Amino acid sequence: MSDSEFPPVEGGGSLLLAWQIRNKTVLVVGGGNVAAGRILGVLNADAKVTVVAPLSGCIPEVKYRISEGQVTHVDRNFLPEDLEGVDMVLTAVDDPVASTEIYTLCKQQRIPVNVADVPPECDFYFGSIHRDGPLQIMVSTNGNGPKLANIIRRQIAEKLPPNLGNAITQVGSLRKKLRQIAPNADQGPKRMDWMSRVCEQWSLEDLCALNEDIMDDLLTYFEANEVPSLAKLTGTDVESLGIFGWFGILASKWHHLVQSLLLSSKD
Amino acid sequence: MSDSEFPPVEGGGSLLLAWQIRNKTVLVVGGGNVAAGRILGVLNADAKVTVVAPLSGCIPEVKYRISEGQVTHVDRNFLPEDLEGVDMVLTAVDDPVASTEIYTLCKQQRIPVNVADVPPECDFYFGSIHRDGPLQIMVSTNGNGPKLANIIRRQIAEKLPPNLGNAITQVGSLRKKLRQIAPNADQGPKRMDWMSRVCEQWSLEDLCALNEDIMDDLLTYFEANEVPSLAKLTGTDVESLGIFGWFGILASKWHHLVQSLLLSSKD
Repeated sequence: MSDSEFPPVEGGGSLLLAWQIRNKTVLVVGGGNVAAGRILGVLNADAKVTVVAPLSGCIPEVKYRISEGQVTHVDRNFLPEDLEGVDMVLTAVDDPVASTEIYTLCKQQRIPVNVADVPPECDFYFGSIHRDGPLQIMVSTNGNGPKLANIIRRQIAEKLPPNLGNAITQVGSLRKKLRQIAPNADQGPKRMDWMSRVCEQWSLEDLCALNEDIMDDLLTYFEANEVPSLAKLTGTDVESLGIFGWFGILASKWHHLVQSLLLSSKD
Repeated sequence: MSDSEFPPVEGGGSLLLAWQIRNKTVLVVGGGNVAAGRILGVLNADAKVTVVAPLSGCIPEVKYRISEGQVTHVDRNFLPEDLEGVDMVLTAVDDPVASTEIYTLCKQQRIPVNVADVPPECDFYFGSIHRDGPLQIMVSTNGNGPKLANIIRRQIAEKLPPNLGNAITQVGSLRKKLRQIAPNADQGPKRMDWMSRVCEQWSLEDLCALNEDIMDDLLTYFEANEVPSLAKLTGTDVESLGIFGWFGILASKWHHLVQSLLLSSKD
């Protein structure tokens, strides 16, 4: 398309986003299977959820969320006044006329809206989601096959290292610990660079092995701006160490001990 | 958390979405590296893009997009009137005061907005994106490490079958062909079920091998509601066929021939 040095534009995609709805109000219209999936999705993102649907037509999962107080329930069909103070609307009702009415009202009031199964009445679509703690992965085929999106998502999830979500939490926690031992603003670039090198030089499987002890060990290398391997830290490459290797481990433990003493003396 | 039969709520996530901005107007404020990434992202989703930034401060990639006419350019700093008719705003300027002003105006006018590097002034975040034609995958660590999101995204991409984007296009095309040979609405459930079985019984690698000939062959099995393996269709399992297997292939080819003749006689 172009021989420019800059990436060419490849149209036809969506803009994938991580929408922030913590403590925002989401209105779900409907109480069937699709509505139940939408309700769980927005609850998982910490939204305040209002469900408008006659209770008699709600499936057991929706009734359960209502009875547990996980959502606010309005026991009737949708009315225009339901949109007051609402930040996002998701409708899933088998009534095209009502859906179009809700869509039109949302557009007038600039409220982002998704009408299930009616692509032209959607500001956004949903994809197939893998969740593992802080890790979220969305697969979208841009309408070429929701089934296939699910299959690809499952295959991706199977090939990820187990415990990866926890590893991400640990990396977040490593960054916080680093900020504690090197709090100065002028160390910011060195901190960022060192954290990047840890993430790059360690495999995802290595990062999954991070625990408090290993983190404390690893952080002792920050001052010298070194990133040791996990094997070196845990001593699992001892057989190839030789005498200088053993000396290195002892020195590192000694360094760690001294640093721990220095840190504890600051409290 | 609960012994209910329904999925428990796991808070702390974002709501991952595929935002639709084809032919919508996106305003990008700024012309640096971050702005360049934002511009490409929204162009890839077919948005109409306006960039507000003094040309003198734009990096070569942004200047290139402007000179190629890929974006509309306003050669000055942001003014409130720039928000007129805008559907989304992305700012990436090193000016916290200006950023906050833009954010406040967007909130008043209910325009979705992302202020780069200022999470509290964002309706949505971006993740790390893999794109292969119609396939889009987003990895988000919910703020625990953008570097790690990139690494996970790269690892996912490496383990996907090559040519998967094309396979998705082919599955979309198989569905269209199926609709042509079985157009009646009362065949809808059978069509959906058969397509699902194809996607489930064939591996992603198999789906990548789909071409026009194989699709035409495969579709001849729809009437009998069968899903043959790829090996059966391409004859790669001939050694294990035996005489009845060979008879089956001949019968299938004959069936295919008759169906082709019937289809062509309809034109």
